[in-house]
Amino acid sequence: MSSYAPIEYSDASSEVRAVFDDIKKTRQVEDVNNFWKYLARDPVTLNRTWQSVKEIMTPGALDAVTKEMVYLAVSVTNGCGYCIASHGAAARKAGMSEAMFGVLMAVVGMANETNRLANGYRVPIDAAFER
Amino acid sequence: MSSYAPIEYSDASSEVRAVFDDIKKTRQVEDVNNFWKYLARDPVTLNRTWQSVKEIMTPGALDAVTKEMVYLAVSVTNGCGYCIASHGAAARKAGMSEAMFGVLMAVVGMANETNRLANGYRVPIDAAFER
Amino acid sequence: MSSYAPIEYSDASSEVRAVFDDIKKTRQVEDVNNFWKYLARDPVTLNRTWQSVKEIMTPGALDAVTKEMVYLAVSVTNGCGYCIASHGAAARKAGMSEAMFGVLMAVVGMANETNRLANGYRVPIDAAFER
Amino acid sequence: MSSYAPIEYSDASSEVRAVFDDIKKTRQVEDVNNFWKYLARDPVTLNRTWQSVKEIMTPGALDAVTKEMVYLAVSVTNGCGYCIASHGAAARKAGMSEAMFGVLMAVVGMANETNRLANGYRVPIDAAFER
Amino acid sequence: MSSYAPIEYSDASSEVRAVFDDIKKTRQVEDVNNFWKYLARDPVTLNRTWQSVKEIMTPGALDAVTKEMVYLAVSVTNGCGYCIASHGAAARKAGMSEAMFGVLMAVVGMANETNRLANGYRVPIDAAFER
Amino acid sequence: MSSYAPIEYSDASSEVRAVFDDIKKTRQVEDVNNFWKYLARDPVTLNRTWQSVKEIMTPGALDAVTKEMVYLAVSVTNGCGYCIASHGAAARKAGMSEAMFGVLMAVVGMANETNRLANGYRVPIDAAFER
Repeated sequence: MSSYAPIEYSDASSEVRAVFDDIKKTRQVEDVNNFWKYLARDPVTLNRTWQSVKEIMTPGALDAVTKEMVYLAVSVTNGCGYCIASHGAAARKAGMSEAMFGVLMAVVGMANETNRLANGYRVPIDAAFER
Repeated sequence: MSSYAPIEYSDASSEVRAVFDDIKKTRQVEDVNNFWKYLARDPVTLNRTWQSVKEIMTPGALDAVTKEMVYLAVSVTNGCGYCIASHGAAARKAGMSEAMFGVLMAVVGMANETNRLANGYRVPIDAAFER
Repeated sequence: MSSYAPIEYSDASSEVRAVFDDIKKTRQVEDVNNFWKYLARDPVTLNRTWQSVKEIMTPGALDAVTKEMVYLAVSVTNGCGYCIASHGAAARKAGMSEAMFGVLMAVVGMANETNRLANGYRVPIDAAFER
Repeated sequence: MSSYAPIEYSDASSEVRAVFDDIKKTRQVEDVNNFWKYLARDPVTLNRTWQSVKEIMTPGALDAVTKEMVYLAVSVTNGCGYCIASHGAAARKAGMSEAMFGVLMAVVGMANETNRLANGYRVPIDAAFER
Repeated sequence: MSSYAPIEYSDASSEVRAVFDDIKKTRQVEDVNNFWKYLARDPVTLNRTWQSVKEIMTPGALDAVTKEMVYLAVSVTNGCGYCIASHGAAARKAGMSEAMFGVLMAVVGMANETNRLANGYRVPIDAAFER
Repeated sequence: MSSYAPIEYSDASSEVRAVFDDIKKTRQVEDVNNFWKYLARDPVTLNRTWQSVKEIMTPGALDAVTKEMVYLAVSVTNGCGYCIASHGAAARKAGMSEAMFGVLMAVVGMANETNRLANGYRVPIDAAFER
């Protein structure tokens, strides 16, 4: 078998199926994304990652669309193609409009620019921001 | 003069003072942060950066606290110490509570983790996410 | 000629062929990877890079599989698609099992997460870790 | 209270103390590092992060020193000062000699270099590395 | 309409057309690159980004080829595939020879390597470099 | 001895002294920077790194100030504090004026911004840039 290939539900162990079932139920989807099918090669990491994602992404102090936009902002900064595609879709599903996406990208671009200006000019932290 | 030093208002040209005045008026603060004082060594970049930041950070499709949290998420991902300190403070001023900060960091951490799992497992983009 | 194209052995200068021959002999392979064929456009960089890689990757204080796993960990963190594919294959050839790969990715993911948590919470270095 | 400050054991809630106690017991240390004391401001993230780290860092398919060296390699690549200090210390405690550290840094440096050469020369993935 | 699709001139608003016209006139090209066609979904960001790029890339203290090579160096370091392709082409158009490209990549590779060696060895800044 | 400490000339082995002597002679300086003193803990890496840097930084298809500015651009993008300080100084010594520094930072900032806009908008590579 290839070193990289998805585990489909029909070929999955009961341990993997239990995670897939919980993802499908929690997200109310008919099938899990490729991310989970590839991660399923390591059932321990699959389960831990899903439990963490489920705990973190449950609405609480921040709502779902804000969390997905933050996820997208990080993925764009890191240049992760898969994550940009999947969390872009998730953010839209959670309510991100075209206008919100435009502003989000503007902020992400500006932050990446000014991060480097601060580095390059060797700006010391203001006393007001220090603990 | 050192290659890295802030330009204080009293030593600034009229061009730089005009930008400092606009920052102080827009943000209703008594003095500008170190970032602007260091950038003031290049008045053209100072002015363009401020005009861009002002345009982008004006509340619109996203509110102020969401924008500052996204700015913080990018800065944490890039490891920019100055920006983490300054936008952490700005996010709190705009309304980020301790609980919101905790969740924000949890999402940022998880996104940085799963970005690498997607890379390492070479996960192909689902057809559903493709244009 | 295109600005990006591989130099095949049959079209290579004697200087490039000497490097290709040494790679093939050292690694006991019939052909060199695309990386070397593209780098061959600059024979000076080709030769210096190969001499450095050969020196560094020769087993010594760390064995071959550990080195390849570290190479893979860095490539996954940087999101270099080519390097993830080539060093994933090299690590497997050097003895990385599926179980070792799973644990490696788990560590890489966790390190990328906690690196950002340390940034975001502005954690100062413990006195015990200081010089 | 400052937005950034450690939670010491004496000031911690029972929920936080339970995590601190488990860290101290598992690692057989008298006090936890700053990382955990700062993360303790968010008990949910503290607990989840510790449970994940404990699961991942328990020796299995990879031994402790290899895992800590991979953690260090990622932290050096990301430029996380705190993590370089703490995981450098942890790797040494787990058995990383000065010679092993030297080789590790050589591999990390070379990987960061060749990652960019592969990007810059736009090297396509060899058919042999494809799924 | 798809969430990701280019805006062609024939479908563009007068606001977008004005930017496209200025790009075509300034660069003396018959059509704008995909970058601008995709950005056109957000006319505000399109306009601001173009005005900034035009101001920055106009020859002044640095000539055009130097600026494009710096742009390429950053894009290679960040691993942005689109930007490597477009600014590689722009640098060549501005006068970057094959030999200059080879040296540029060598410097970029070495800088990425020594950046990590400095991180890993925790090298303190020399007094001579301090302000 | 600490795990992180510089090797001074007076304490250095003859192998290390030979490298230090060559650096001092090549650069016509009285002492080597901290970078080399810390790297000296691993004489093999010290020597290989110096030989590579010497080969790459010798003026050729690109002049000294251009190379140092590219080195600085990469270091600013990666956020390496030591490298920003040392290559900022080196670039100035090689002829970078205050005006050139200002433009360099403007390009570096803009490149980091547009790299993310290209990522976020998922811009496909124009046919004209393809091989």
